[in-house]
Amino acid sequence: MGQQAKQAALVARRASTEEKNRALTKIAEAITEATPEIIRANAVDLKEAQAQGLDAPSQDRLRIDAKGIASMVAGLEQIIALQDPVGQIKDTTIRPNGLSIGKMRTPLGVIGMVYESRPNVTVDAAGLCLKSGNAVILRGGSECIETNRILSECIQRGLMAAEVDPSWVQLVKTTDRAAVGQLLKLDEYVDLIIPRGGKSLIERVATESTIPVLKHLDGICHIYVHDDADLRMAEALIMNAKTHRYAVCNAMETLLLHQNLPESFVQDVVTQLIAAGVEVRVCEETHARLKPSTDVTLAVDEDWVTEYLGPILSIKTCAQLEAAIEHINGFGSQHTDSIVTRSIEASQKFIREVDSSSVMVNASTRFADGFEYGLGAEIGISTDKLHARGPVGLEGLTSEKYVVFGAGQIRE
Amino acid sequence: MGQQAKQAALVARRASTEEKNRALTKIAEAITEATPEIIRANAVDLKEAQAQGLDAPSQDRLRIDAKGIASMVAGLEQIIALQDPVGQIKDTTIRPNGLSIGKMRTPLGVIGMVYESRPNVTVDAAGLCLKSGNAVILRGGSECIETNRILSECIQRGLMAAEVDPSWVQLVKTTDRAAVGQLLKLDEYVDLIIPRGGKSLIERVATESTIPVLKHLDGICHIYVHDDADLRMAEALIMNAKTHRYAVCNAMETLLLHQNLPESFVQDVVTQLIAAGVEVRVCEETHARLKPSTDVTLAVDEDWVTEYLGPILSIKTCAQLEAAIEHINGFGSQHTDSIVTRSIEASQKFIREVDSSSVMVNASTRFADGFEYGLGAEIGISTDKLHARGPVGLEGLTSEKYVVFGAGQIRE
Repeated sequence: MGQQAKQAALVARRASTEEKNRALTKIAEAITEATPEIIRANAVDLKEAQAQGLDAPSQDRLRIDAKGIASMVAGLEQIIALQDPVGQIKDTTIRPNGLSIGKMRTPLGVIGMVYESRPNVTVDAAGLCLKSGNAVILRGGSECIETNRILSECIQRGLMAAEVDPSWVQLVKTTDRAAVGQLLKLDEYVDLIIPRGGKSLIERVATESTIPVLKHLDGICHIYVHDDADLRMAEALIMNAKTHRYAVCNAMETLLLHQNLPESFVQDVVTQLIAAGVEVRVCEETHARLKPSTDVTLAVDEDWVTEYLGPILSIKTCAQLEAAIEHINGFGSQHTDSIVTRSIEASQKFIREVDSSSVMVNASTRFADGFEYGLGAEIGISTDKLHARGPVGLEGLTSEKYVVFGAGQIRE
Repeated sequence: MGQQAKQAALVARRASTEEKNRALTKIAEAITEATPEIIRANAVDLKEAQAQGLDAPSQDRLRIDAKGIASMVAGLEQIIALQDPVGQIKDTTIRPNGLSIGKMRTPLGVIGMVYESRPNVTVDAAGLCLKSGNAVILRGGSECIETNRILSECIQRGLMAAEVDPSWVQLVKTTDRAAVGQLLKLDEYVDLIIPRGGKSLIERVATESTIPVLKHLDGICHIYVHDDADLRMAEALIMNAKTHRYAVCNAMETLLLHQNLPESFVQDVVTQLIAAGVEVRVCEETHARLKPSTDVTLAVDEDWVTEYLGPILSIKTCAQLEAAIEHINGFGSQHTDSIVTRSIEASQKFIREVDSSSVMVNASTRFADGFEYGLGAEIGISTDKLHARGPVGLEGLTSEKYVVFGAGQIRE
């Protein structure tokens, strides 16, 4: 598979945007036509999942209906509409000797995707890799194998209908765990591994892989409310970032409050959170500012480094902006952090000094997402610092090479 | 050292361009003042190198005189003159909901440099890391330890004179080989390892490191002469790329010739190369086109994948452009490759399909260099595909985070 993918990548890298869009269109058609087949295969996976006693949220992630299939197809159509990054030349400069030097976007080569549950990842990843001129080897979870097999068959049909090499997209069809280990060592053929799934999967991949990994670990996101914040805005942002959805990486896990914020505001926010069903854990300073009857617990050290992924929030009072930045850089996960303030100076300091992949001013952390950022779709969110940070779309699946145009210049 | 570097990086990341330039100026002054001390320390290293029987080229790389020191200082002055990439925001878009989303350049954090010989790397690396807002841990070769110690002392004096944290730049003062192994495992504190030196050093670093490595392996560079090339231009480029300097990574190692090029041209080029002292190894097809008396040998498979780093050149005849591209992508090292042609179509195909960090048209491969590209100075040349390809300057020591400006937007 590695060899085939590498061969396919050589062709994929020089495919025109038209060819790639045609293949994407054909894949979308094949998926739409196969809707009943996909639903049948998914039912087999679901039955097996129930038999195995998979928990309800995992079953939910696995389930796919006609609406879900239509939304996969809509995702492909969005990818078709995206601008092709490959071949773009930018930053061109002319050197004193007349050489013209620029940077051209090129595909990475072969991407390995290792993921769990959600069958839409199969289609999203195939679409994004194809559009960016990369070949891809997909390794979905064993719980989803029947659904993935039929989806991959649709992709194959589409690629063949478009008369391109079907090895552009390959699915590992075995559910053997050892196959992942093998994939992670294919450094001769695979240029980048992207894991998507729970923390243990990502940690396993990062440890075992001899190939560079674009990884997304925790999302311990913060909102910091500065003393000059618009308090109504702050309240709305806090409620949205915490309660809009719990099990997502861009939900807020820790709220930081400037010590000068009015007690009534602090009380209000906590009361609202509790009313929404959120368990609130506070530092001692925050505790002292709340009515004794408020149903909160004291946070422990562990709380500041925990991604709850659920209806729990920790709250800490900070003496000033600097303390908030220090807390975020020290205890956060470099994912997404937001300040609520009216001050240009405070906001500039915050965006400059907070070392996270997304730093926001007066916006909900929930916006850290490829669709919301206008990337069209995301293949993942990177909490690494090299190559790509934050939501990764088409551009993150490419890199830049230098292109130099001369007229016979030699180096003296 | 890792902890101190991480602490220092937090401050370095928010230093203003003025502060950083001031520190660089003070370092340059300290080095100039210490010229006699540096030369004395270098003499100790040289004497030891002779006693150890180090080969002449290595001794050359180690040697530093007043002129060499002045050129280090000039390098720092060039870095001072470079634009500070940190804090630049680009690609800002306004989303339909009014969110403004852009990308801001930020330092990586802590860089670990592992290098051999050339003491100027100590000063270059310190300068580039400092200007890009990173802290750095330097680990030079044991053969250069006395020179590096005094250079690092000058750097410390400069940092202190500028009243900034001297831990921005730290030198590993022990020559213990195990210290490198320890540095390569400091993934909690170090964000990127950059090795510079021979292939065995780079391979060791890449294998042992648990930190991402920006590596530069072979430079198997090609020139391909298309059938419509300006033959005088081709000759000049070939001679420059092969004979200007032999032991550099951007020297040409394999020459590819279109089969329709005139025999007289082929003969001419080979004769000139031989006259310049280059050993020429040719494929059978090329051999058949040369006068039998020509002093060449037949190339073996090994030749196409060898970085000679010396006065040897392999030559292969290609049936057409596609064969040349295939040879380069198959046997090259993705470093630097150049086409000589008058055809827009051939040049466009070449720059699009050759998967190398620098792809050139009508220019000598010798130009693949940070100074020649206008980066000011380079910390290395990357033959990796992720993060940065080709010569790496200040920008390669940074990455981009998303910055999002809102007015209280929440996600529905």
